[in-house]
Amino acid sequence: MNINISANPSASTHLSLDSLAATGVWVPALTPINADLYPDAHRYVTHVKWLLEQGCHGIVVFGSTGEANSFSVDERRALLEALLEAGIPASKLMAGTGCCALTDSVTLTSHAAVNGCDKVLVLPPFYYKAVSDEGIYRHYAEIIERVGDPKLKILLYHFPKLSGVPISLDLIERLLGSYPDNIAGIKDSSGDWNNTRALLARFPGMAVFPGTETFLLDGLENGAAGCISATVNVNANAIRNVYDGYLQQSSHTAEQQAQINSVRRVIEKTPLVPTLKKIIARMRQDPEWLRMRPPFVTHAPELTDAELTELTDAGFVLPGAHTA
Amino acid sequence: MNINISANPSASTHLSLDSLAATGVWVPALTPINADLYPDAHRYVTHVKWLLEQGCHGIVVFGSTGEANSFSVDERRALLEALLEAGIPASKLMAGTGCCALTDSVTLTSHAAVNGCDKVLVLPPFYYKAVSDEGIYRHYAEIIERVGDPKLKILLYHFPKLSGVPISLDLIERLLGSYPDNIAGIKDSSGDWNNTRALLARFPGMAVFPGTETFLLDGLENGAAGCISATVNVNANAIRNVYDGYLQQSSHTAEQQAQINSVRRVIEKTPLVPTLKKIIARMRQDPEWLRMRPPFVTHAPELTDAELTELTDAGFVLPGAHTA
Repeated sequence: MNINISANPSASTHLSLDSLAATGVWVPALTPINADLYPDAHRYVTHVKWLLEQGCHGIVVFGSTGEANSFSVDERRALLEALLEAGIPASKLMAGTGCCALTDSVTLTSHAAVNGCDKVLVLPPFYYKAVSDEGIYRHYAEIIERVGDPKLKILLYHFPKLSGVPISLDLIERLLGSYPDNIAGIKDSSGDWNNTRALLARFPGMAVFPGTETFLLDGLENGAAGCISATVNVNANAIRNVYDGYLQQSSHTAEQQAQINSVRRVIEKTPLVPTLKKIIARMRQDPEWLRMRPPFVTHAPELTDAELTELTDAGFVLPGAHTA
Repeated sequence: MNINISANPSASTHLSLDSLAATGVWVPALTPINADLYPDAHRYVTHVKWLLEQGCHGIVVFGSTGEANSFSVDERRALLEALLEAGIPASKLMAGTGCCALTDSVTLTSHAAVNGCDKVLVLPPFYYKAVSDEGIYRHYAEIIERVGDPKLKILLYHFPKLSGVPISLDLIERLLGSYPDNIAGIKDSSGDWNNTRALLARFPGMAVFPGTETFLLDGLENGAAGCISATVNVNANAIRNVYDGYLQQSSHTAEQQAQINSVRRVIEKTPLVPTLKKIIARMRQDPEWLRMRPPFVTHAPELTDAELTELTDAGFVLPGAHTA
């Protein structure tokens, strides 16, 4: 899909990028699991450092790709602390803190904020379905008021296929009206460009992140903040190049966008999280990376040569591997 | 719907009822909320005691009706402990312990078992959708193995409209094969009689509870254990009468079943949890009962006279009210 409303980004677009709470290529980091199915903090820190070296602007600690909702509040707090203790700046982190229980969302959001991690990505409560906008509004409002940190920057997390609880544009407008300093953005994982475009048109001051790099260039040209995407775990460098190419008005950007789309298409045909773990396991020659916590199967099969060939044919370069 | 395969229950049906892990009319108790949106343990204990006096065989502590998933692990543990401390026998309780995070489900299930509450109602992990039976199997298997209590009786909780994660008959068979002493039953909240009937036919040793009293008599005649239903919160006595009437082969039972169906139909037209709280608030003359935790609206409107009249016309008797 190509919707090039402005082929040459205007100066005002750049200005608005600077004013957003977060911009660039962000990655919901995969969570490695040990033999007892607990998070492996050591491998997690190593992976996150490597992602930053690969060009990611920042890390979402516990997005859907990180199996966020499969971990307890304590496990999530411990892993965020492990990153901070390893010296990763809080400014480069965005904590996933949205749970079904208001009190859990408050606990995780407070914990992030107290640790200097002001940016949080917050799912709506997702067990009950067909709830009212009023109920979802109250959930977010209670989080903001109970945490009580004026620096808090909430990015709403719209992922209706998994949460079953869409975040409507009217709800966003109401939240922005009440908490203009705290409602800072949205990750739009609807996969629906029309929804992303509607968000960009209606909320120009918000950091709108499409949930896939497929919309990276089109998004940037329409005022998006960048992207937050699962596949950045294995293709950060190429995706970052598109972002930088857009800022530099490079003539190669459209071609580079087509390339990352081609890789994404191959990965999207498969179950996303297992495939990403398989690629990392192959890259690091580390089968420990194949594990997942239920409800995902506990052990992904290894990446086959045929699967790697299909990725390579699509333009993928296995990071860290020799490419002679 | 009436599917009277056997108009006269056989002796063998009664025998099989005796062998089930739980039988009768069970109620997922509503959870009262205080002004700060925390669970109100005092009102909860009072409500649970009253439900038992009204004829409930047992109480589900934290079903969907009890806003289970809107509370943290700590809040759920505290409320179960409040019931036990108030002298309510653990044998009359069934704890809802199924969370998205395996570790949370293990924590809650262990806590229930350690406190003598062997019966637990366990949702599958419900954030990720379209997960494999293998992944759901592993989640339940890990709970059973980590809790490690041979007395543990798990009732699977099938509520696909809310969880988005159905529990297939093949998965149940596999779980029963591995853990015949621990997989003890299922609450079937599909609202689909065909699914309930299939469960009854394929798993005669399991305690199958339809999630609505609408299927109580048909269920019992086909080997069901009873029912676990939200509306028991306000109509326990009449629903219990159907159960007792079936056991006593009373000639009035079909008529009584029609009566409870009629009441259920009126309540089912409305959002269930708010309406049930409104009825309790009216009955007790206690507006505190109108509160809910987000994502439900935080305060239900009061029950109007017109709504009460519609219920009364359907045969409902406001419990505790004068009925002269």
